[in-house]
Amino acid sequence: MPKIVDHEQRRGEIALALWQVIHEHGIDGVSFRAVAEAAGVSIGRVQHYFSSKDELVVFGCRAMVSAAEQDHGPDPSLREPARARDALADFLCAPLPLTEGLRVGSSVWATYLAKSVSHPGIAAVVAEAMHGRAEATATLLAAARGTQEAREAQSTALALVSLSEGLNTRVLAGALVADEAGALIRDAVDRAVHTD
Amino acid sequence: MPKIVDHEQRRGEIALALWQVIHEHGIDGVSFRAVAEAAGVSIGRVQHYFSSKDELVVFGCRAMVSAAEQDHGPDPSLREPARARDALADFLCAPLPLTEGLRVGSSVWATYLAKSVSHPGIAAVVAEAMHGRAEATATLLAAARGTQEAREAQSTALALVSLSEGLNTRVLAGALVADEAGALIRDAVDRAVHTD
Repeated sequence: MPKIVDHEQRRGEIALALWQVIHEHGIDGVSFRAVAEAAGVSIGRVQHYFSSKDELVVFGCRAMVSAAEQDHGPDPSLREPARARDALADFLCAPLPLTEGLRVGSSVWATYLAKSVSHPGIAAVVAEAMHGRAEATATLLAAARGTQEAREAQSTALALVSLSEGLNTRVLAGALVADEAGALIRDAVDRAVHTD
Repeated sequence: MPKIVDHEQRRGEIALALWQVIHEHGIDGVSFRAVAEAAGVSIGRVQHYFSSKDELVVFGCRAMVSAAEQDHGPDPSLREPARARDALADFLCAPLPLTEGLRVGSSVWATYLAKSVSHPGIAAVVAEAMHGRAEATATLLAAARGTQEAREAQSTALALVSLSEGLNTRVLAGALVADEAGALIRDAVDRAVHTD
């Protein structure tokens, strides 16, 4: 079904253009015209896929979560503790803004976070993504520990994923170098696997 | 010198109005007109204190940092370990958005964070504030441990303050209740004081 693939691809291209507009002008700077210009397509093309600016903005938030999950999502079949520990460290280090693309992505995500306070639709997508990240962390942590103690893993996993998010923000703001953040994350993962 | 106090007060009132505009319309939605309207003063009054929109926006970022430091800054004279531990936990829990005012403040701070990627002036203020928070955490942690091991305290302090910032963001986004975040912070403080 080439037509469906084509539609998905076009929506993806519009999402990329939307993120660029948000990065440069914030969510309140989004308009069909600005996104169409950034995507190099007509305003009508954007309106063909999205019936309102709000729908476009929320779609962009969902697309960002999906892209991160595809890029960094853990392999759920991991059962060998040492491999699960490495996968957990990689998962928590993956969002560190090491490239210009990741910097733009992190900046747009921070903008969505800020907007979530006053926009229930964005808040729902952000909260769901955060729950998913905490759950993936707990699954990998339990596998790394070689146990099934899901309840204890959940609380420690929440602290681990929040630590990585806080460090990520510090790197984004230029208050910390990515290598130091990565070392602190890997150190925390080792402690979480071996203690409790 | 009542006139100087008056000037500071007026700039403070303009900062409050600016934050409301940023909360509602983002940093790119800031204009002298919008801020003057939110403050209930003339555009000329705002222009009397700020020569450009950019100066106003950066002033608002600095004012936010100053307000947080005045509200939540640790008492540097704390020397008794148990009191320092309590002060450290309170310091790290203080930004949790428990009130509508703190929610708006956290949202505006998140917006400044996002903007710091593309705005060096804001990045400088944000990074300096982050360094200050990490330093205050290290000072309190060393006092709580009753030691002078500043180097080891620094690395653990950085992890502690990043954990609290990550958890704070999750509460802001509605992915976590403030009580659970507070419990995780206090638990991490206890571990940091008693281990390493």
